[in-house]
Amino acid sequence: MKSLKNLTKAELLVMKESLTAEYKEAQAKGLKLDMSRGKPGYAQLDLSLPMLDVLSSQDDMKASDGVDVRNYGVLDGIPEAKKLMAEMMETTPEHVIIFGNASLTVMYDTVCRAMVKGLLGETPWCKLDQVKFLCPVPGYDRHFAITESFGIEMINIPMNSDGPDMDLVEKYVNEDPAVKGIWCVPKYANPTGISYSDEVVRRMAALKPAAKDFRLYWDNAYCIHHLYEDQQDHILDIISECEKAGNPDMVFEFASTSKVSFSGAGMAAIAASKANLEDIKQTMTIQTIGHDKINQLRHVKFFKDRAGLDAHMRKHAAVMRPKFEAVLQVLNDELDGLDIGSWIVPRGGYFISFNAMEGCAKEIVARCKEAGMVLTGAGATYPYGKDPQDSNIRIAPSFPTPEEMHEAAKLFALCVKLVSVEKLLQAM
Amino acid sequence: MKSLKNLTKAELLVMKESLTAEYKEAQAKGLKLDMSRGKPGYAQLDLSLPMLDVLSSQDDMKASDGVDVRNYGVLDGIPEAKKLMAEMMETTPEHVIIFGNASLTVMYDTVCRAMVKGLLGETPWCKLDQVKFLCPVPGYDRHFAITESFGIEMINIPMNSDGPDMDLVEKYVNEDPAVKGIWCVPKYANPTGISYSDEVVRRMAALKPAAKDFRLYWDNAYCIHHLYEDQQDHILDIISECEKAGNPDMVFEFASTSKVSFSGAGMAAIAASKANLEDIKQTMTIQTIGHDKINQLRHVKFFKDRAGLDAHMRKHAAVMRPKFEAVLQVLNDELDGLDIGSWIVPRGGYFISFNAMEGCAKEIVARCKEAGMVLTGAGATYPYGKDPQDSNIRIAPSFPTPEEMHEAAKLFALCVKLVSVEKLLQAM
Repeated sequence: MKSLKNLTKAELLVMKESLTAEYKEAQAKGLKLDMSRGKPGYAQLDLSLPMLDVLSSQDDMKASDGVDVRNYGVLDGIPEAKKLMAEMMETTPEHVIIFGNASLTVMYDTVCRAMVKGLLGETPWCKLDQVKFLCPVPGYDRHFAITESFGIEMINIPMNSDGPDMDLVEKYVNEDPAVKGIWCVPKYANPTGISYSDEVVRRMAALKPAAKDFRLYWDNAYCIHHLYEDQQDHILDIISECEKAGNPDMVFEFASTSKVSFSGAGMAAIAASKANLEDIKQTMTIQTIGHDKINQLRHVKFFKDRAGLDAHMRKHAAVMRPKFEAVLQVLNDELDGLDIGSWIVPRGGYFISFNAMEGCAKEIVARCKEAGMVLTGAGATYPYGKDPQDSNIRIAPSFPTPEEMHEAAKLFALCVKLVSVEKLLQAM
Repeated sequence: MKSLKNLTKAELLVMKESLTAEYKEAQAKGLKLDMSRGKPGYAQLDLSLPMLDVLSSQDDMKASDGVDVRNYGVLDGIPEAKKLMAEMMETTPEHVIIFGNASLTVMYDTVCRAMVKGLLGETPWCKLDQVKFLCPVPGYDRHFAITESFGIEMINIPMNSDGPDMDLVEKYVNEDPAVKGIWCVPKYANPTGISYSDEVVRRMAALKPAAKDFRLYWDNAYCIHHLYEDQQDHILDIISECEKAGNPDMVFEFASTSKVSFSGAGMAAIAASKANLEDIKQTMTIQTIGHDKINQLRHVKFFKDRAGLDAHMRKHAAVMRPKFEAVLQVLNDELDGLDIGSWIVPRGGYFISFNAMEGCAKEIVARCKEAGMVLTGAGATYPYGKDPQDSNIRIAPSFPTPEEMHEAAKLFALCVKLVSVEKLLQAM
C-alpha cells in the first residue's frame, strides 16, 4: 500500500469521508469488545481446571519434607514448590522464596520494604529526599503505579529492539546514587513483546551502581509464555549473570503462575541472592506465618516439573496464537505500508504494542471506545500515564475469542486510519 | 493444699529434695512435648478436609455476582465471602474487605500503610519522630513484633479480668498525640482468655484520641472459638459501638478462618468504616489485582453461613476441650492453694495464661525445656520480650493430644513447684 504521507489533500479528504462512513457503520453495530487487560480467556482457565482435583480430602497432606501443608509454618515455601518455581525461572531452589497468589503483591512488598526497612542495612528510602527508578518505556502500568504511589521519581528509558538503551541505563545507574532501581520485563516484555539480548542482560548484570541498594526489579512474568514451539526467545539467567559479574545482590527476580494456572489463585515467587533472601525473611517472619502451602502442593501435584509446565504452556499457546495472529493479520492487511503506525510481532507474552503517528494514540483509543471497544488507556504504558509522543497503544488479545479479536482489530485499524488521516489533514 | 509461703526452711528443703528427684525421673523419660504455639492439632485440621472437595473441576466457577473466580479482578472479595466474614465478625458486609490466607499479614500491612502512606490523609508515621502503641499485657507476641519492627514505642497496659485498664488507656490516648494505636484481642484474649466487658468495649469506642489517626487494632481472632456450648462470652460489635460514639473511623477489626478451616490456607478479613475501607482500597489497587477468589468460594461453599461456622466450631470445641481440661485439672490438682501461681479458666480461645511467682517464669520455662518440653519463651507475652515481673507463661494446649497435654501439664506443674521452692529458699 501507499504511504498516506504522500497523498494530496484532496485524496486525504476523499479517504476521510469513506473512513468516516465506515466508522459510523461500525458504531451502529453496538460492539462490546475489551482489549484492555492481559487477562486469560476462559479456554485458558479451563486448561487448569483439573488442578482442582489433584488435592482432595482423600490425599496425603504432607509436603516432601513431612510438613503438614494444612497447618501453620514454613515461611519460604515447601521444598517441591521452590524446586518447581526455580525450574520455571531457570535458577536453583536455594535462590527462591515462595509467596502468595500473585507477583504484583511481591513487587509492591519488595519496594515497600526498601521504603520502610531499607535493603541489607542501607537507609530506608522514606528517610531520603530523593529516590529514582529507571523505567524502560513503553512498560507495564502497574510497575509504574507502584513506584509512583511511593513518591519515587521515574525516569523514562527508551526501549530498543534488544532491550532498554543500556548506554543511558549505565549513565544513570553508575553516576546517580538516587537511582535505586530499574523495572525490567526481560522476556516477551509488556507491552513490546521483545526479549533482552544476551549483551543487554550482561550489561545489566555488570552495572556499577552509585547506590549500594540499587536493584534490578526483574519481572520475569512471561518466562514460559511462548506463542510458538519453533520460535522461542531465550534470555540469560540474571541471577547467575549477576553472580559472575560480582554483583550477586543486585537483582530481585519475580515470577508467578498467574498466567499459567489461575490468574487469581496462582503461586508467586522471588529469586535473589542468599543475602537478599535472608534480608527478606527477616521482614517476612514478622509479616506472616507462611503463605498458602495447600495451593503450593496443588500446583506441584498438577504441574510436576518444568516439562509439565512446558507441556501446559503449549496448550496455552494453542489458544493464544490464533488471537495474536488475527490481530497481526488485520494490522498487516489494513495498515502495512501506510506509514501511519508500526508494531512488533511478538513470539510470546500477552501483548502487541502499536506505535501510532505522534499525537494520535489518545484519539485512536477514544474513537475505539466510542465504537464499543475498550483499549488500555493511551499513555498507560508510560510513567505518570504520560506518553511524550502520544503514540503507544497496548493491545491485549488474550481475553476475547479469535473471531472477536478479528473484529476488534478491524475496528482498531479503522480508527488508526481515520485519526491519522485527520491528523495529516490538520498538518496541511 | 497449704501455701508454700508458710512453710519453714526445713520443710521447703525436704520438698526441694523430693521435687528434684521427681524432676530427674521426668528428665530420664526423654519427653518431646510442644506447648509453644497456638497451632491446631491434626484432629482439628481433619475437620476441614471435606472443604477440599467442594470445588472440583466439575463445579461452577462463578461467584454470586457472575464473576469467574479463576480470573483476575475483584479487589475486595466476592460478595458471598464478605457476607460470611461479616457474619463471623458480627458486622455487615459493606464494612468488610477480604484479604489473603491469614490475618497477621493484614495487620502488618495495615500498620505498614500507616507508616508509609498515612491514614486518611494524616502524616505517614515514618515522617514522625515518635509513634507509640498501647499494648495490653500479657498479649500476643506477634502483635508486638510488628510494632517493634517499625520502631514504634510500646507501652504496657495492665489487663484486668474484664479487659485492659481503661483509666490508663484513656489517659494515654486522650492526652498523647504520639499514641497512634492499641493492640486488642477483645475475645478469649491471647493469652489470658478473658473477654472485654461491655463497659470496656464502650469506653474503647468512646475514646477521644489526641491523634486523629489513632486506631483500635481489634484482632478478633477468636470470635467464634468457644470451648463450651453453654458458657460463651459475647462482646459488643466494635464497629457499631464506634459509630454510636461518633468515632466511626477509629477501628480496624481483623479476623480470619486460620483456626477455623486451615491454618495456612484460610481467608482473612478486615472490617472498618466506609472511609477507612476506601483509604485501604486506594493502596490495595496498587498492591494487588485481588486475593485468591477460588479459596474464597471454597470457604463459602463449605461453611455456607454463620450457622455452618458455628456447627463447625462445635466440632473444634469437642477436640479442644479435653486438652484444656487436662491442663486445668492438673494445675488444679497440683498447684491449687500452694500460693505459687495463678491462672484463668478460659471459655474459649487457644491459651491458658499462667502467672508464676515473680522472678520465676524464665526459670520454669528453662526447666521444662531441659526435660523435653517447649513452652512459649517467658517474656514473649510482653513488648520487647520483657516481662517486668518475669511471671507470665503462655500455655498452648491445642497441638498435642489430651494424653500428651496431661503429661505436659504434670511436668509443667512439677517445674513450677521446684522453681518456686528454690525461689522461696533463696529469699530466706
